[in-house]
Amino acid sequence: MPNPSEDFTLDPQLARDTMPVGDLPLCRVLLINDANYRWLLLVPRRRGVSEIIDLDAPARAQLMTEIASVSRVLKELSGCDKLNVAALGNVVEQLHVHIIARSRGDAAWPKPVWGAAPAKAYEKAQIDRMIDALRQALTLKPV
Amino acid sequence: MPNPSEDFTLDPQLARDTMPVGDLPLCRVLLINDANYRWLLLVPRRRGVSEIIDLDAPARAQLMTEIASVSRVLKELSGCDKLNVAALGNVVEQLHVHIIARSRGDAAWPKPVWGAAPAKAYEKAQIDRMIDALRQALTLKPV
Repeated sequence: MPNPSEDFTLDPQLARDTMPVGDLPLCRVLLINDANYRWLLLVPRRRGVSEIIDLDAPARAQLMTEIASVSRVLKELSGCDKLNVAALGNVVEQLHVHIIARSRGDAAWPKPVWGAAPAKAYEKAQIDRMIDALRQALTLKPV
Repeated sequence: MPNPSEDFTLDPQLARDTMPVGDLPLCRVLLINDANYRWLLLVPRRRGVSEIIDLDAPARAQLMTEIASVSRVLKELSGCDKLNVAALGNVVEQLHVHIIARSRGDAAWPKPVWGAAPAKAYEKAQIDRMIDALRQALTLKPV
């Protein structure tokens, strides 16, 4: 089992753009505050990691396991047509994996979401419901 | 070890946009014919797979192993500043994982590459050299 660093700190821009959902064994799960899409981030709780290949092999395997778990839950909850999974990180250096539920006719379809449409803030009740549903499906506690 | 389907067929659009590099145990490795970036695709040789979660757990683990191998080689050969790794597939349904070497000042930097700049065809000698170097580094034979 990967042993996340005790002194993990979330990048400030990621913190600003997201709501915390909870911690899986390796990654913090975050919900992007953009109601255009159901859009999650997985951030390995390791210091100094910006590429998937900066993780050791057991952590990479665990990352794939967590990508699959979160993808399944997000597909189930959103009823999406397609999942987009991506580790880009050209702007924010800390490794973060996007898992985005895409639907035909969404604000960017069929283009990638980045830069496609201005973020649309969730209503409080809507984001609370979404986070509750994610926590229940992933058996996560608030962080 | 995953057992790729015998009757794998590469999507025609992926075939049109790429040059074959070779086959890893799970994936076909392809080079996108766009000299703006060093840009590879990994396509699992399985039928009817459009999402990472359509692969079974051993194949997902193997996909992560191959993503890591190809990422390391691409970083080494390109001297890039950042790797972008993504499975989107909103247009082409067949699961394909982009592994893109990004450099500060490239044709899209720091944006994602999709839709950012018109593709620039390689010169024949340049693409041949690139494919030879990839085959040598990944110990691949022509397919």
